[in-house]
Amino acid sequence: MPDKRLRISRAGDRAGRRPVLLAIAGDSAAGKTTLTAGLVEALGPERCVSLCTDDYHRYDRLERKSLPFTALHPDCNYIEIMEQHLQLLASGQPILKPVYDHSTGQLTRPELVEPNDFVIVEGLFPLHSKLARACFDVTVFLDPPEEVRRDWKVQRDTRKRGYTPEQVLAELEVREPESAAFIRPQRQHADIVVRFAPIAGREDSSDTPLSAELMLRPTIRHPDLTEVLQSGLHRAMHLKLTRDTDGRPADTLHIHGYVPREESVAVEKVIWASIGEPGSTSPECLGRLGPDARSEPLAITQLLLLHHLLDAGR
Amino acid sequence: MPDKRLRISRAGDRAGRRPVLLAIAGDSAAGKTTLTAGLVEALGPERCVSLCTDDYHRYDRLERKSLPFTALHPDCNYIEIMEQHLQLLASGQPILKPVYDHSTGQLTRPELVEPNDFVIVEGLFPLHSKLARACFDVTVFLDPPEEVRRDWKVQRDTRKRGYTPEQVLAELEVREPESAAFIRPQRQHADIVVRFAPIAGREDSSDTPLSAELMLRPTIRHPDLTEVLQSGLHRAMHLKLTRDTDGRPADTLHIHGYVPREESVAVEKVIWASIGEPGSTSPECLGRLGPDARSEPLAITQLLLLHHLLDAGR
Repeated sequence: MPDKRLRISRAGDRAGRRPVLLAIAGDSAAGKTTLTAGLVEALGPERCVSLCTDDYHRYDRLERKSLPFTALHPDCNYIEIMEQHLQLLASGQPILKPVYDHSTGQLTRPELVEPNDFVIVEGLFPLHSKLARACFDVTVFLDPPEEVRRDWKVQRDTRKRGYTPEQVLAELEVREPESAAFIRPQRQHADIVVRFAPIAGREDSSDTPLSAELMLRPTIRHPDLTEVLQSGLHRAMHLKLTRDTDGRPADTLHIHGYVPREESVAVEKVIWASIGEPGSTSPECLGRLGPDARSEPLAITQLLLLHHLLDAGR
Repeated sequence: MPDKRLRISRAGDRAGRRPVLLAIAGDSAAGKTTLTAGLVEALGPERCVSLCTDDYHRYDRLERKSLPFTALHPDCNYIEIMEQHLQLLASGQPILKPVYDHSTGQLTRPELVEPNDFVIVEGLFPLHSKLARACFDVTVFLDPPEEVRRDWKVQRDTRKRGYTPEQVLAELEVREPESAAFIRPQRQHADIVVRFAPIAGREDSSDTPLSAELMLRPTIRHPDLTEVLQSGLHRAMHLKLTRDTDGRPADTLHIHGYVPREESVAVEKVIWASIGEPGSTSPECLGRLGPDARSEPLAITQLLLLHHLLDAGR
């Protein structure tokens, strides 16, 4: 049961401060939950709350079977309510959030979400509308190559959601037109587009960690990476002035998964020091892919997002 | 499935107009649902929506068993979310309302409520806080004598909610301190206090319909009843200048249940004509207590509330 005193005292501490909101948008199994989990753990539950916009599904799994669209269609979601709840959270107010249970496919009892210093919103639709986008301080779109995402989706949905691989692949095909129409267009609205992928042209072994490409759009002020980039660590990370597919200029940060781990960790140390949080090394939880698996490109991506969050919160 | 076109066109029609909100507060089994049902049916679903604040229970029936308070305690309810939702509805915005299922005692999937021309909010807490009260155009408190309410509660909870009479009476006793502390104090904030009761001192038979006493506080402008009161129908209804228990002046309208039905119906006709809605007689649904039971004092009470609602909506 919630401790009321705690709630009141916390609300008091936060009086007059609105939370920092981060959006992590992307298609199903694009890595949103993994990216979010490390950030939430690093910030700590006492100052961070996260939510998933899948909870705003309008229909449960059974009802969707007889509908002419999938969960990727805006009409299959309470978009207007999602916008309203984002606005409430952004202005520091609590919401009673609906709950969609992925394990059963049912809509269940809603839960109270009280905004904290940081609110991380991940899901299919956080950047769908102008009203929703306006609520965020930083926006991210996860954009893995389709073949990478397909592998991730098959793995997750067979392990955690009780589907067969054939069902997952068939579902991906059914969803493709709505992915193209409603999910991928959100990419253009993100401040940061994150792409985890193997590097084209290299003959890396299959256990080589994926590299990350972060398109840093000039829509927000990005952390100054001069120190990292001049520290002789450019094999682990480098920055290029690029054009997006639509011609818009952006920086692209390349974080290489194939370099020896110590080089990546050295980059992490420099970024962590620049953030100004306590401790000489970044939290263990960053870069975690599972109980035994790590990705340093993921850790560096999360560090840059932490930098943004903490900066916006100051 | 909702017809999107219809929704948009209706929203268009209502553009710039905020709904009229009526609160019907009162203790458990005080007659809130019966009073509301007639109003909703008379106005029609195309322009009226109703909701019950019991849906804002924070805990389900099982959880409440181990708590030191009952559903009548504000801490047992999402009061802050209820206030937020009332504010949203009052400003013409939709809400995703939680749902408490009285038949199972469980909290279930929430439902979309889109404000209409009229929103009727009944429940234990609509007048609990200043913020909630500020959302309403007209506020009503149902205040039957405790022995009348006890009979109503035993009847309803044994028939519809699966309790035994002993359980209901025991529950009433447990709830009494919280009734006194949180529910009855809302009476002082109502524009209209409605009391259905037998008339003291009369030896009416037990099948005589209850009379109604309506305290009309000068907190809102009440309909001009001069015509009704001068039409020789004063046996069915009359008005008295009175003082409330706390000394505040108010009009009290006495509507007698013991007069022949045609006298009450004559009063209804005059009030209906003054409302200016189509038809020479008031809707059949007013005064309905059940499939075969009617109460003319209830019908007249509902007519006066309809008068208020339609007036506020103009």
